[in-house]
Amino acid sequence: MSELTHFENGAPNMVDVAAKPITTRTAMAEAIIMLPEPAKQALANNPKGDPLMVAQLAGIMGAKKTSDLIPLCHPLALKKVGVEIEPHELGLRVTATVKTEGQTGVEMEALTAASVAALTVYDMLKAASKGIEIRTIRLLSKTGGKSGDYHAEE
Amino acid sequence: MSELTHFENGAPNMVDVAAKPITTRTAMAEAIIMLPEPAKQALANNPKGDPLMVAQLAGIMGAKKTSDLIPLCHPLALKKVGVEIEPHELGLRVTATVKTEGQTGVEMEALTAASVAALTVYDMLKAASKGIEIRTIRLLSKTGGKSGDYHAEE
Amino acid sequence: MSELTHFENGAPNMVDVAAKPITTRTAMAEAIIMLPEPAKQALANNPKGDPLMVAQLAGIMGAKKTSDLIPLCHPLALKKVGVEIEPHELGLRVTATVKTEGQTGVEMEALTAASVAALTVYDMLKAASKGIEIRTIRLLSKTGGKSGDYHAEE
Amino acid sequence: MSELTHFENGAPNMVDVAAKPITTRTAMAEAIIMLPEPAKQALANNPKGDPLMVAQLAGIMGAKKTSDLIPLCHPLALKKVGVEIEPHELGLRVTATVKTEGQTGVEMEALTAASVAALTVYDMLKAASKGIEIRTIRLLSKTGGKSGDYHAEE
Amino acid sequence: MSELTHFENGAPNMVDVAAKPITTRTAMAEAIIMLPEPAKQALANNPKGDPLMVAQLAGIMGAKKTSDLIPLCHPLALKKVGVEIEPHELGLRVTATVKTEGQTGVEMEALTAASVAALTVYDMLKAASKGIEIRTIRLLSKTGGKSGDYHAEE
Amino acid sequence: MSELTHFENGAPNMVDVAAKPITTRTAMAEAIIMLPEPAKQALANNPKGDPLMVAQLAGIMGAKKTSDLIPLCHPLALKKVGVEIEPHELGLRVTATVKTEGQTGVEMEALTAASVAALTVYDMLKAASKGIEIRTIRLLSKTGGKSGDYHAEE
Repeated sequence: MSELTHFENGAPNMVDVAAKPITTRTAMAEAIIMLPEPAKQALANNPKGDPLMVAQLAGIMGAKKTSDLIPLCHPLALKKVGVEIEPHELGLRVTATVKTEGQTGVEMEALTAASVAALTVYDMLKAASKGIEIRTIRLLSKTGGKSGDYHAEE
Repeated sequence: MSELTHFENGAPNMVDVAAKPITTRTAMAEAIIMLPEPAKQALANNPKGDPLMVAQLAGIMGAKKTSDLIPLCHPLALKKVGVEIEPHELGLRVTATVKTEGQTGVEMEALTAASVAALTVYDMLKAASKGIEIRTIRLLSKTGGKSGDYHAEE
Repeated sequence: MSELTHFENGAPNMVDVAAKPITTRTAMAEAIIMLPEPAKQALANNPKGDPLMVAQLAGIMGAKKTSDLIPLCHPLALKKVGVEIEPHELGLRVTATVKTEGQTGVEMEALTAASVAALTVYDMLKAASKGIEIRTIRLLSKTGGKSGDYHAEE
Repeated sequence: MSELTHFENGAPNMVDVAAKPITTRTAMAEAIIMLPEPAKQALANNPKGDPLMVAQLAGIMGAKKTSDLIPLCHPLALKKVGVEIEPHELGLRVTATVKTEGQTGVEMEALTAASVAALTVYDMLKAASKGIEIRTIRLLSKTGGKSGDYHAEE
Repeated sequence: MSELTHFENGAPNMVDVAAKPITTRTAMAEAIIMLPEPAKQALANNPKGDPLMVAQLAGIMGAKKTSDLIPLCHPLALKKVGVEIEPHELGLRVTATVKTEGQTGVEMEALTAASVAALTVYDMLKAASKGIEIRTIRLLSKTGGKSGDYHAEE
Repeated sequence: MSELTHFENGAPNMVDVAAKPITTRTAMAEAIIMLPEPAKQALANNPKGDPLMVAQLAGIMGAKKTSDLIPLCHPLALKKVGVEIEPHELGLRVTATVKTEGQTGVEMEALTAASVAALTVYDMLKAASKGIEIRTIRLLSKTGGKSGDYHAEE
């Protein structure tokens, strides 16, 4: 395998995508959050002020900051960002969905949305337990672009 | 257990820390990155343009954006941020260390630095494998503040 | 009336606009600022260092930050932003005009530009009077998009 | 009356506050939002996905961006930010409370929090009515600092 | 010569580019950095932790912040950003290359990338010498757009 | 000479300043802008909409973004930022003055303010001449901190 795409003559580079066709791109990513028992209880006891909605919003806003956070990401006009959080056997599962129409994919935007949402869950519940862990952050699927579609194994 | 600290009468709130004493606070967090074989090879074949240094810088800069990303985090004058990346049996291990002198801790800053560094590793190597996964993001330790020191179990 | 457009199954959502046609969109918003007498005099006595030009620039730059401030706003490539400030019987009147070519409107960008300009007027003159008030912020008109044109009543 | 404090020899200036004593500063601001009937109904029909909580969070995050939005504001380490939204005869009333310990006041932070929360209410409900208006944004009170306390008249 | 393009009736303005055709735009800018002898030696003695790569990344990320820094610049979807740093008789020479497809040029983005990279070189080496100077920042060339191509004289 | 201060074991690092004493720090920087004849005339013909005030404000706001632009800079609570622009035999001379009370200096803030102001002058006048050049950006002086005062030679 030759040089990484983000490097040109050994120097980091925001690669030229001007010649690529504009296509619809989607990506979906997940984050699994392991909640120790005290954190689970704190969550269950707070139906009114919903900490998960804070995390959803943080994830959506985080997706819009992706090119500011990841040095070689292109700025993209995102057309849709959604973040859902549901119960999971370990605690919680975040799924983030991002769509654009452009010349480069939105995998990093989906992964960033899921990560920021998961970090916000940690922040909201850390008074109950500092042992909360994000156990997985991964790409679930992507569509569009030259490299074709991708679906992670179960 | 009563209401979460980030809520007041059911409304989200950046809590009042003005009455807390100013102490030295440190936090250390880690992120474990699982690299599939093609990603490991791509990394090994790029000694010149070092993708891990890009990730280290992204992590350091990410720590400075924590209060912009996590809705209820206080803005803090960070005194030190360091990010190291070393080989790990699964692929790579990121450790982030943050220090401040203030009225609230830097756990979120360390976790954000580790997360952004890990996401940047994904971005740098994703052309080699979309199956890269962040397997763990967790707090390793914190010192300072009323809640006392914390050290994660091995 | 059913669910709000920004929610999907009860979760906040940056809605999918990918299927919408790209059209020219404009919006105009106003802010009326009530200046107590000491603030009017301070303004009249400062012809050289023009505080209103500071407010105009702040409004233009504020429009560019709209999707960073309003959680569910799409990032948009703005094509024109103008902010004017003129005398008004209560004190000052800000009008902001924004244009784009895209799949969603620029009402929030115009309202944000007018608001940030008005807040900056407050900041520039607050040493003269803390009783300055923004009395109205409203949309004057919009054009383009499926929902059609809108013109506020006088 | 002489030159405005933000100008020095006719040039805009972020004024020197280094010699001022560090004191506890608080400020409270309000925004009144007039909701036309369709917007009131849309709000009443959405108990699940709470649009007002989105606005509260936007206001809190907006307070942290004040020195980025208002050109001559000093960056401040905010110690507390809270935003409440309650029913009002015209529609809704936002109150924002900000606290710091520093050399300059937090009036602009409280006004910015109230403004961004009110703009977000507009965004959340604009599908129901474009005629929503922010009718008042004003400082309710401030404490701390050389210029003394301030309380707006009823 | 009449009024500057950024002003309309004496007020600053982000000018309307909606009617302009979308074309491929490129720009290249340079910055020359004069390094006093101690700074040259510090650079030569640090082959491992490469300070120039930090500067390259800062320049690339800086290009993405151009419309946030330069008040009347339009936000642009950049398609490529590259920054190179090479030895020069005075010390170092930065060249930045930016490309977009849009309605306005990328001269400011190239100049900003070169400037931020040069400032970062200063920061990395200032412990060795505070006398480092940026001696030239200028546009080398631009292509695309109605005003035609431009190539600086040698 | 040993390793650069920004590196620790070959890795970039935002160095630990927690143990340093808090002192008053000031820095002054300059930027010289060479204006070709058409740019000089455009400036002379625009007394009403003052392009230099736009540049001054951009410089002040740029100083506040320094730790966001320069990867290893500490975030600092700036106490004063001023930017002046005056005629110079080559065209214009920008001087930026920054003050803080903290554990690290404000040289980068002053240099960034001068650079952003100079880049904005380019942007405001580039319709008149693309040959405008920034000829010098340098530190004029600094005070405070362990390394002592510094004054550039004439």
